[in-house]
Amino acid sequence: MEETFVPLRGIKNDLRGRLLCYKQDWTSGFKAGFRILAPTTYIFFASAIPVISFGEQLERNTDGVLKAVQTLASTAICGIIHSIIGGQPLLILGVAEPTVIMYTFMFDFVKDRSDLGRDRFLAWTGWVCVWTAGLLFLLSILGACSIINRFTRVAGELFGLLIAMLFMQQAIKGLVEEFRIPHNENPNLTQFIPSWRFANGMFALVLSFGLLFTALQSRKARSWRYGTGWLRSFIADYGVPLMVLIWTGVSYIPTGDVPKGIPRRLFSPNPWSPGAYENWTVIKDMLDVPVVYIIGAFIPATMIAVLYYFDHSVASQLAQQKEFNLRKPSSYHYDLLLLGFLTLLCGLIGVPPANGVIPQSPMHTKSLATLKHQLLRNRLVTTARKSISKNASLGQLYGNMQEAYQQMQTPLFYQEPSTRGLNELKESTVQAATCSGNIDAPFDETLFDIEKEIDYLLPVEVKEQRLSNLLQATMVGGCVAAMPILKKIPTSVLWGYFAFMAIESLPGNQFWERILLLFTAPSRRYKVLKQKHATFVETVPFKTIAIFTVFQTIYLLICFGLTWVPIAGVMFPLMIMLLVPVRQYLLPKFFKGAHLYDLDAAEYEEAPALPFNLATETELGHGASYEGEGEIFDEVITRSRGEFRHTSSPKITSSTSTPANDPRSHLSPRLSSSPHLGELRGERSPRARGNEPHGPMTGIGRSPLNPSPS
Amino acid sequence: MEETFVPLRGIKNDLRGRLLCYKQDWTSGFKAGFRILAPTTYIFFASAIPVISFGEQLERNTDGVLKAVQTLASTAICGIIHSIIGGQPLLILGVAEPTVIMYTFMFDFVKDRSDLGRDRFLAWTGWVCVWTAGLLFLLSILGACSIINRFTRVAGELFGLLIAMLFMQQAIKGLVEEFRIPHNENPNLTQFIPSWRFANGMFALVLSFGLLFTALQSRKARSWRYGTGWLRSFIADYGVPLMVLIWTGVSYIPTGDVPKGIPRRLFSPNPWSPGAYENWTVIKDMLDVPVVYIIGAFIPATMIAVLYYFDHSVASQLAQQKEFNLRKPSSYHYDLLLLGFLTLLCGLIGVPPANGVIPQSPMHTKSLATLKHQLLRNRLVTTARKSISKNASLGQLYGNMQEAYQQMQTPLFYQEPSTRGLNELKESTVQAATCSGNIDAPFDETLFDIEKEIDYLLPVEVKEQRLSNLLQATMVGGCVAAMPILKKIPTSVLWGYFAFMAIESLPGNQFWERILLLFTAPSRRYKVLKQKHATFVETVPFKTIAIFTVFQTIYLLICFGLTWVPIAGVMFPLMIMLLVPVRQYLLPKFFKGAHLYDLDAAEYEEAPALPFNLATETELGHGASYEGEGEIFDEVITRSRGEFRHTSSPKITSSTSTPANDPRSHLSPRLSSSPHLGELRGERSPRARGNEPHGPMTGIGRSPLNPSPS
Repeated sequence: MEETFVPLRGIKNDLRGRLLCYKQDWTSGFKAGFRILAPTTYIFFASAIPVISFGEQLERNTDGVLKAVQTLASTAICGIIHSIIGGQPLLILGVAEPTVIMYTFMFDFVKDRSDLGRDRFLAWTGWVCVWTAGLLFLLSILGACSIINRFTRVAGELFGLLIAMLFMQQAIKGLVEEFRIPHNENPNLTQFIPSWRFANGMFALVLSFGLLFTALQSRKARSWRYGTGWLRSFIADYGVPLMVLIWTGVSYIPTGDVPKGIPRRLFSPNPWSPGAYENWTVIKDMLDVPVVYIIGAFIPATMIAVLYYFDHSVASQLAQQKEFNLRKPSSYHYDLLLLGFLTLLCGLIGVPPANGVIPQSPMHTKSLATLKHQLLRNRLVTTARKSISKNASLGQLYGNMQEAYQQMQTPLFYQEPSTRGLNELKESTVQAATCSGNIDAPFDETLFDIEKEIDYLLPVEVKEQRLSNLLQATMVGGCVAAMPILKKIPTSVLWGYFAFMAIESLPGNQFWERILLLFTAPSRRYKVLKQKHATFVETVPFKTIAIFTVFQTIYLLICFGLTWVPIAGVMFPLMIMLLVPVRQYLLPKFFKGAHLYDLDAAEYEEAPALPFNLATETELGHGASYEGEGEIFDEVITRSRGEFRHTSSPKITSSTSTPANDPRSHLSPRLSSSPHLGELRGERSPRARGNEPHGPMTGIGRSPLNPSPS
Repeated sequence: MEETFVPLRGIKNDLRGRLLCYKQDWTSGFKAGFRILAPTTYIFFASAIPVISFGEQLERNTDGVLKAVQTLASTAICGIIHSIIGGQPLLILGVAEPTVIMYTFMFDFVKDRSDLGRDRFLAWTGWVCVWTAGLLFLLSILGACSIINRFTRVAGELFGLLIAMLFMQQAIKGLVEEFRIPHNENPNLTQFIPSWRFANGMFALVLSFGLLFTALQSRKARSWRYGTGWLRSFIADYGVPLMVLIWTGVSYIPTGDVPKGIPRRLFSPNPWSPGAYENWTVIKDMLDVPVVYIIGAFIPATMIAVLYYFDHSVASQLAQQKEFNLRKPSSYHYDLLLLGFLTLLCGLIGVPPANGVIPQSPMHTKSLATLKHQLLRNRLVTTARKSISKNASLGQLYGNMQEAYQQMQTPLFYQEPSTRGLNELKESTVQAATCSGNIDAPFDETLFDIEKEIDYLLPVEVKEQRLSNLLQATMVGGCVAAMPILKKIPTSVLWGYFAFMAIESLPGNQFWERILLLFTAPSRRYKVLKQKHATFVETVPFKTIAIFTVFQTIYLLICFGLTWVPIAGVMFPLMIMLLVPVRQYLLPKFFKGAHLYDLDAAEYEEAPALPFNLATETELGHGASYEGEGEIFDEVITRSRGEFRHTSSPKITSSTSTPANDPRSHLSPRLSSSPHLGELRGERSPRARGNEPHGPMTGIGRSPLNPSPS
């Protein structure tokens, strides 16, 4: 994305790009059939459960002015509108923790003013939203999102980890609260005598750890060894909601002497009770707000605008990371504009506004990648089985699969057909084939475990569409009606779910993976090399990785500490925005450019100069006529990228029957590696490779075809 | 072992064999240094904790006549004597559940008789022990243990799984009890009001699952990726005792309102209190028992004798499975004789007798195999590092390690030096070496991850010695004095530990692995082939495996059901002994001999006839001059053993530089396999291969050098 600040240009570009694939956004969703329900329910739970919990938090903090009903309504309305007319449909909207913190702060300000007070709180926040919307319009029109490239991995991942810490903190806090008497409750009730409180706390530990453990296990179900295929698929797709159901069921097992309040459950008034919707008519009170407060509303509005600008864009960015290989364009400017309208709408109907949320947005993309993987896999398995029954050779088999794969690549109307191909066959498979005779000999199925190989062959792809987002937002809206059912969920299951979300958001976060690397015993670091791993592990000295990671960790802890400071706490997003100049101007003074580039590829930076002129030439000029030069080409690419060590070993790979129409396949990092590295990789456990696109996503960030992304 | 029933011959043979290595049993133990403490503490906990729990069970069932003090004393005395003058020092002695069941039954019989009653209970059981001892002497002298070969894998593993089920049942029962008012307790205490009982139960769930989960994780610590080497080693060696300590500590966290009785802890009187030792003088009461009861004591004595004969021998057998590659001889006859003396002693001092226990005995051997592995590994890593620093080639390196390994093989005085060698180098390593140039070229360390390769090269070996057994028995004795400290352990930690023991005893049990195989999705069965696995997986049709396993499972469930029947329940060992004739006469009518042989190798059966005469000839005559004939030899051996499929693929292995002085190495099943099997195996995950000898032990039961063990 170019950094242009010409008014409206960004919005226009976004609209143009998204309109071209708008129809395909819907057809693609419907074509997936009922399988779309898997990511939908997964994200629905991830979206609804925190929103309900934030609603309860707001209820306590605002003396009941705002409740879970309002947070759910806001999430549903904004979600539905965004999924239909929004730019990036992968982005999930919801009422987030920072919004809750801001609203709490504003309520504390308002409640003691005689000329505002509790009754005019919503009217005043209406004005705050009006100002916020205005500021968001301005930011969006002036192209503030153009600098999104400067929000590098460092900033985004730090923010992601911060959110994970906040979720985990909420889980721990919630569990501790289970041992105490809740606020605003009659402490004389049976369930609050010490013995029942202790019992409630222990029961909460059982339920939350039970949920956490089983939910984490269920996500891995596809690679379980036991159970039939459809059962494993079902558990992997719907395991988390299922576990919420199961543990809610478990919470009903103790009966008899156990009082009704144990375990504690969600507490929210019936949405059909009178007065539950008085917020809808807030617009008529807005003119009653004294003018000085209308003007004063500008101050919190600036903070919220900055927060939303950052939060919305980073959530969108994390949902569109390079690893996902998205094909449809981004839409930062237009989405920010739409967010302005949504904020205005929420303000006028008296609900807290929703914005793009982390970790739900990247979770959404991941789950859609899993869906796409399953769809592609089914097709390729059928193709492969058919080829085998016709006694095809390994070469023919691979060719047929390549063809089937290409057919699955729906051409987007606005661009040329995708040039993406299947991954190369594994060295080990090819080697096995060559050992047992010839690559063109009739195919021996024992050499080639179809399903496993196909998992390996498939690149990461995402089912980019609008249906799952629309459905999940509608289901969140349905929660308002289903409140009496939702109230059956124990709060402790909620805390377990919060912990689950925190942990689920970690894989794929390179910052987190670098922290883990610091704790890896030196003698075990080779194990990292055996799995998919980011380039930096091989190119940056360990000491540099360590210093960089420690710096980032300290920065993270400062941000986390800031969230504890009562009022200044809401400014923590500024601290993260500060990372942008720090990254751009300060870090290059302490780290070598090449190292920094590998640890945190910033698109505005120049790629390090290529060591040979030959490299640029080959790369630019002879891209198509690479046959024969393949080896030199490989070597140059890999050396210039610093991706693999120099090697003069025989190329086993030259015997592979690579389809000539796919120039990219020869550059696959796997095959251009030296044989012993390939060997190591060929050996890594089937679980590590997994069926989930999870694995692949944690991996190398940049395609080897784009050594200089600038 | 030959089946000879000449009186005393078996005992004489046993004594001769064990005396020859008696001195080495001690020197070898002391040479291991402080590392011997790892298996010692591990087994001490596995031995003491159930014995304490059985003691508490006895206390409830015998109105306090027998307590944990007596069960601990019996375990300690018998353990110390057996470890010093017993035959097989791998065998762990302890008061076991069947003994508790028998004693409960006898107490129920005695307590209502006016001429015996509670006071003469121990005197009467003294007579029972006298008769039992007599019967055991008889069995041992007449050579009853000769038929131990007929206790095939089927019987032993079924018994092992039954014990695991009983342990698990005890864990579940114990946890359920935590929610109830215990027997013999004042139900009006604060801690027994419903709320505190519920709280206690929930706390118990937290503690027991916490212990179970962390203990299971700690056993895998050696292959963790995080933490330094010594920390990982320490956790793997001492993790389980450590976790008992930690969770006991956690149980002290709740204070304040929580009454003292929560969580419930071990309940045992102070051993120093008056009357705690009145059992010691029981011998003087024995003559007061009416003659009719002295004679009647013969009836329970027969049952106990049968039980001990079976239990002791099977425990010993499971501790000496073929997979462990033991080098010292067995001692079934002599150990049974000694058990007779120990039973007599226990009867006369009024404590319940101890006998060989499952799963502690096989756990003992496994932990000693881990110890030996660590010792060998340290030595070989040093050797390898030294060779590499001298720029040795892969061939030289392997030669040096082979030599170092041979030096570590202490020759036993009574037999020739071991001909056992290191495992063959992995195909993948050799291939990598040949690809990168020549096997004799200076060695490239990146090709060869030393520690990992060495784990792979080392065969399973056990540190066979008497020190760990003596130490653990002494420590059990120390528990009597440490009773006030032991009472701090919560009962719920005990239940978690019971569950841990049940789960720890499963790996390596082929019956269990076959049950798992039944639940493995057909499409995932190939994964079993990638790990070490027993021969039957490749040679026996799945349907046959399934039928055999279902039969065995039903039999197991019948045995398990029997333990629930009040009085007949003690006869369940008879049901397992019945498996011996069932296996010998009934099963061959339903299963093909070759299949049965692979599923359950019985030494009394003939191996299936070898398909070629050449085979026997080569094997018997030309064993030494195999060079050149290696391939045919391989093929014949593997085919006759049914170990691998027939293959006509090129032998990659012929390029390896096998040291010529190790005739066995060429027969290694790994290298004689077809290349794609090797390929699959080369690929299995490093974790599956593990550092624990665990993995290897679950594997192929018989060495390929002994195709016809009869």
